[in-house]
Amino acid sequence: METLSKHEVFGGTLGYYRHASTSTQCAMRFTVFVPPKPTGAGLIFLSGLTCTEENFTTKAGAYRVAAELGLTIVVPDTSPRGDDVPDDESISLGKGAGFYLNATQEPWKKNYQMESYVAQELPALIEKEFAVKKFGLFGHSMGGHGTLTIGVKYKDRFHSFSALAPVCNPSVGGWGAAALEAYLGHDTGQWAQHDATQLMKTTKGDLPLILIDQGLADGAYKEGRLNPEAFVAACEQVGQPVKLRTHEGYDHGYFFIQTFIDDHLRHHAQQLGA
Amino acid sequence: METLSKHEVFGGTLGYYRHASTSTQCAMRFTVFVPPKPTGAGLIFLSGLTCTEENFTTKAGAYRVAAELGLTIVVPDTSPRGDDVPDDESISLGKGAGFYLNATQEPWKKNYQMESYVAQELPALIEKEFAVKKFGLFGHSMGGHGTLTIGVKYKDRFHSFSALAPVCNPSVGGWGAAALEAYLGHDTGQWAQHDATQLMKTTKGDLPLILIDQGLADGAYKEGRLNPEAFVAACEQVGQPVKLRTHEGYDHGYFFIQTFIDDHLRHHAQQLGA
Repeated sequence: METLSKHEVFGGTLGYYRHASTSTQCAMRFTVFVPPKPTGAGLIFLSGLTCTEENFTTKAGAYRVAAELGLTIVVPDTSPRGDDVPDDESISLGKGAGFYLNATQEPWKKNYQMESYVAQELPALIEKEFAVKKFGLFGHSMGGHGTLTIGVKYKDRFHSFSALAPVCNPSVGGWGAAALEAYLGHDTGQWAQHDATQLMKTTKGDLPLILIDQGLADGAYKEGRLNPEAFVAACEQVGQPVKLRTHEGYDHGYFFIQTFIDDHLRHHAQQLGA
Repeated sequence: METLSKHEVFGGTLGYYRHASTSTQCAMRFTVFVPPKPTGAGLIFLSGLTCTEENFTTKAGAYRVAAELGLTIVVPDTSPRGDDVPDDESISLGKGAGFYLNATQEPWKKNYQMESYVAQELPALIEKEFAVKKFGLFGHSMGGHGTLTIGVKYKDRFHSFSALAPVCNPSVGGWGAAALEAYLGHDTGQWAQHDATQLMKTTKGDLPLILIDQGLADGAYKEGRLNPEAFVAACEQVGQPVKLRTHEGYDHGYFFIQTFIDDHLRHHAQQLGA
């Protein structure tokens, strides 16, 4: 693991790092905020389409309260990167659009193994290098999709969950269906394993309370690309506790994230016992 | 004035705007945050080298406390822009490097009239369009230079002042001397009108308390490009109240700004009676 730069912020330290990933077979970048008094609780934040590790790190305004609560915050990139990694001209396929799954189709399957990266390789590295003992997971948009799908599948790894404007039902259209088909092939049975709404219906509803925030002026929401209501209905079907808050006037961007991020940090700190 | 986009944030509204400036003879962009309950107090933030209106707006994390205090916040670009505007390959001359002065030399003098823009044209527009009644001025690096020089010269317009890692003595080297020569010519007497340290020595020290924050791991500071100590000495010479706070470990970037911005907002709110 190579340290690219380090910056003091709110009495803690924000570092940019790069390492050779075995999951994605390329160099992956991420940032880590270490609070002045770490509690051992760490959060991984999954970003949305087109983002890198930089967007949340510079724009979310999360580190003030993370410092106060003693939370370590890790922000990975959204896909494999590099000249040898396949890409697509669509913003919702290829670089910046890994969808937090393990691709099974050519040309994607060699590098696009973001599920393994985020659920296994990255937390193992963070545990070792930054002494994090217990992880929570949260994310925005495509990263909300990653949070809710990985959350269901890796209950032993992650112990608290929240999402901002998550993509909740990608197998039925909007952002997601085209990517799921490209990465996973035509068998829609496979897609269900990467659709939070369908996955939730197969569980016992035994995750801790999931917090979701959604802006009502969010263009993607209004176009039906997010569909948190479908996810909430699936939760209700299996008795999974979920809290969906809607906010008049807020859109899909980082000003929305900034406004509500503190509530997410407090939600995770409480659930992780930080 | 044209509205480019608007975003809800912390219960207020952040807008991106563009207008045809008579000072700089080109289209100028700026952002305005209007808090949920405006008090009539407004701050203009002047950014550093290479920045546009975007950097502070997305990275400073200022709107949470601005919303709480009822402060309107205006962030202009750092120079004239457009294909017809002269530029230079140096990061400290031309676009992104207006130095908040009125250039007298070719090819700069037509468009590089940022002092008039920031001290007169922009606040007049904001007064009219956003009902701001009383202005404060603050800034970072080159924008700290702009704050302290314009602060001395336009006492009737601005009523509170603060700076983060300001360029305090540009006429004697570091960032600034080359730009001052290009914009103002060889007469160093003219440069003194755009050097906060020299200007302060000519005053009665009758500005309200000026707050300055400086990180001690700031590369520009360590190389002598900022020199807040010279400015503080000039203040002491004329009896001007000034508070310079230094911070171990903090560098020159927006993580430093994020960490201390709330203190600046509270400083201005108090001085403006917001």
